[in-house]
Amino acid sequence: MGWGDPGCYGNEARETPNIDKLAEEGAMFTDFYSAYTVCSPSRAAMLTGRLPLRTGIYTDNFFGRNSVFLPNVTGGMVAEEETFAEIIAKLGYRNKVIGKWHLGNTEESFPLKQGFHEFFGSNANHFGPFDNINFPNVEVYRDDKMVGRYFEGEYFMNLTTGESNLTRLWSEDALDFIEANRKGPFFLYWAADATHTPLGAHRDFLGTSQRGLYGDVVRDLDYGVGQIISKLRELNIERKTFVFFGSDNGPAGYQGIESGSAGPFMCTKITTFEGGMRVPGIFWWPGTIPAGQIQRAPANLLDIFHTVLDITGGEVSDCSKPLDGQSLLPILTDEPGAKLENNPIFFYRGTGLFAVRVGDYKAHYYTWTLGPLAKSIYGDPCSGEYLENFTTEEITNHTMQPMLFHLGRDPGESYPIE
Amino acid sequence: MGWGDPGCYGNEARETPNIDKLAEEGAMFTDFYSAYTVCSPSRAAMLTGRLPLRTGIYTDNFFGRNSVFLPNVTGGMVAEEETFAEIIAKLGYRNKVIGKWHLGNTEESFPLKQGFHEFFGSNANHFGPFDNINFPNVEVYRDDKMVGRYFEGEYFMNLTTGESNLTRLWSEDALDFIEANRKGPFFLYWAADATHTPLGAHRDFLGTSQRGLYGDVVRDLDYGVGQIISKLRELNIERKTFVFFGSDNGPAGYQGIESGSAGPFMCTKITTFEGGMRVPGIFWWPGTIPAGQIQRAPANLLDIFHTVLDITGGEVSDCSKPLDGQSLLPILTDEPGAKLENNPIFFYRGTGLFAVRVGDYKAHYYTWTLGPLAKSIYGDPCSGEYLENFTTEEITNHTMQPMLFHLGRDPGESYPIE
Repeated sequence: MGWGDPGCYGNEARETPNIDKLAEEGAMFTDFYSAYTVCSPSRAAMLTGRLPLRTGIYTDNFFGRNSVFLPNVTGGMVAEEETFAEIIAKLGYRNKVIGKWHLGNTEESFPLKQGFHEFFGSNANHFGPFDNINFPNVEVYRDDKMVGRYFEGEYFMNLTTGESNLTRLWSEDALDFIEANRKGPFFLYWAADATHTPLGAHRDFLGTSQRGLYGDVVRDLDYGVGQIISKLRELNIERKTFVFFGSDNGPAGYQGIESGSAGPFMCTKITTFEGGMRVPGIFWWPGTIPAGQIQRAPANLLDIFHTVLDITGGEVSDCSKPLDGQSLLPILTDEPGAKLENNPIFFYRGTGLFAVRVGDYKAHYYTWTLGPLAKSIYGDPCSGEYLENFTTEEITNHTMQPMLFHLGRDPGESYPIE
Repeated sequence: MGWGDPGCYGNEARETPNIDKLAEEGAMFTDFYSAYTVCSPSRAAMLTGRLPLRTGIYTDNFFGRNSVFLPNVTGGMVAEEETFAEIIAKLGYRNKVIGKWHLGNTEESFPLKQGFHEFFGSNANHFGPFDNINFPNVEVYRDDKMVGRYFEGEYFMNLTTGESNLTRLWSEDALDFIEANRKGPFFLYWAADATHTPLGAHRDFLGTSQRGLYGDVVRDLDYGVGQIISKLRELNIERKTFVFFGSDNGPAGYQGIESGSAGPFMCTKITTFEGGMRVPGIFWWPGTIPAGQIQRAPANLLDIFHTVLDITGGEVSDCSKPLDGQSLLPILTDEPGAKLENNPIFFYRGTGLFAVRVGDYKAHYYTWTLGPLAKSIYGDPCSGEYLENFTTEEITNHTMQPMLFHLGRDPGESYPIE
């Protein structure tokens, strides 16, 4: 999902009344970032508080190349990585991940080995349909038991009509989990596959958005968010529950018009331009996080790790392990004198540190969209946007003279500072 | 001001609490348009309910060339044009225009000849400083008396520091007018020069926005809006007052980073791409316009004329004169069964009909940004945006095969429909 997708971030289709309400009643970050340009590395970073370069979940060892855990990719998050789920499990939290795990295909990377007590979903994308013995449809698990495959049975997805029950399955399971753990404490990592392709929305929403199927999917997702929040209220535990809504990368603009919006930002997912990593970031905790807060300090998914530890009092086992990010709790709760320390945002592609933001300034050391061949296959992540020597088809080295932008005056990265 | 400038339209700098509140308490149009790509033609269209091609206020007779009333331009709106100010004056309304009139330098085009009882401001841009006898500083009028000149005395503007009292002068005068006419009926056309260049903000706001001086100017303008609304409430007449907030063209992106935001839309002012004419459109009338309305039907400044006549019961003198646009009152007040009829939006440059939007589809018949020479002088209205055969430096004729976009799925006009 892109920064420009929720109505509260300006989307003209206004498909997200429930997400907008979270923002209205909580804190909305205008300058929130994913931790990476694509999903797996970003998710690992959120759970471990460590940059992808440290967890190793980021690359196939080519400079600037992204990597994610497709079903046929070997490897995964190693046992030595400590997720905040592992940490808070020791404090008595009951943890569940629902939806797309996406942190590896090894045994040690499996959710139940990484701090989660329950799992409903898959450790890969919901790609398909696949129908041969070498590449069968992707497995769906409940805990450590396989219960089905995408595109089969209740996990169907009709690629012609766009109908799918996936998001609904994920939200209904979430309601059951919350109900069962109403006495708490619990941690629900609700990682719906939507709005990722292949696109699928519940039939209630098919054809209801002016944006086409992508918008229907956003509405379906927003409905799920609304159901979860309603359940918290129904159980009277909303004042004891910290909620974060975010995204693991920018919109998939390279897939053409059936994708999300980067708002006013340059380019989309895969890239280290603003549109690739600037995402929604909304925090909600009635009674603790004051309503209507608009926060413009830069923050990102790495900070979720530290914020959760700050809330729960959890501590990492090995203090000598380098961590990245910081707790957002002081600014979220409006502690007197709380100020977000200068929070640098790092923009990596593979092994390459492409850009850094500090304050309102962002310096690009390398720039790259996609090469001509990849563009011809996947589409252009920067369609309708072009800046000379910046939206480059080849990896371009600017380290001798980084391209510098002031994101306050020029959020669209269109006027390089000479 | 661009579509992307107010916070409620997604601007990450969040400089407009008062404008956002209008949207929250009233109706916010996501698909609102100015009536033309630059100021004078758009303003004439709003006041007369007629396209610039009919009023003649649009061109210097070169195909595709824009024209506005600079101080040294001859001509102006002719007496035969009937503004809605003229119509409602007959119904007993007291009318005043404050700020930038910009509809001509002839006697007959002067506000007091076009339906306004009072005038405080200028009939030209606040350009300057000028210091020679052939081109002196632009005159400021009270009614039909000249009371000063821009850049002199209280109308000063410090181009080095960016300090100016203009917006504050306009808002204080507005408060006096409202106070004096509290028993009504009245029509105040508050046409602040901000956020047009040269940029100037009250010293209270200098240096307060992360966007630089442009953002300070937005904050200053928003403060003026807030003062006016507070005055209506203080006098207990807010439930009897219809308020519209809009803009006469997209942001001046061609001026570089010290300008507004077109949000996710292509290019800026001067052009017929979405960013050139998509603008904020907010309607407020407590008790009559239901709060929190998000309206996605296309509408534009021409519709203001018809909406005002609908509210007041005013009628045009000459029914045979062609009019454009329609009343928005039925949808604003949520009349049962009210639906905005298919409201086409015409995108002209000079004498050229460049594009038309009907429903979610927009067809471009001609495309043009600016020629290389103009770009080298004024800057690029499409900096950071480029689509082949679309953001063209020469006027490009697509009439044999118009370039078609679906603005619901592709608001950024980046994926032409083949």
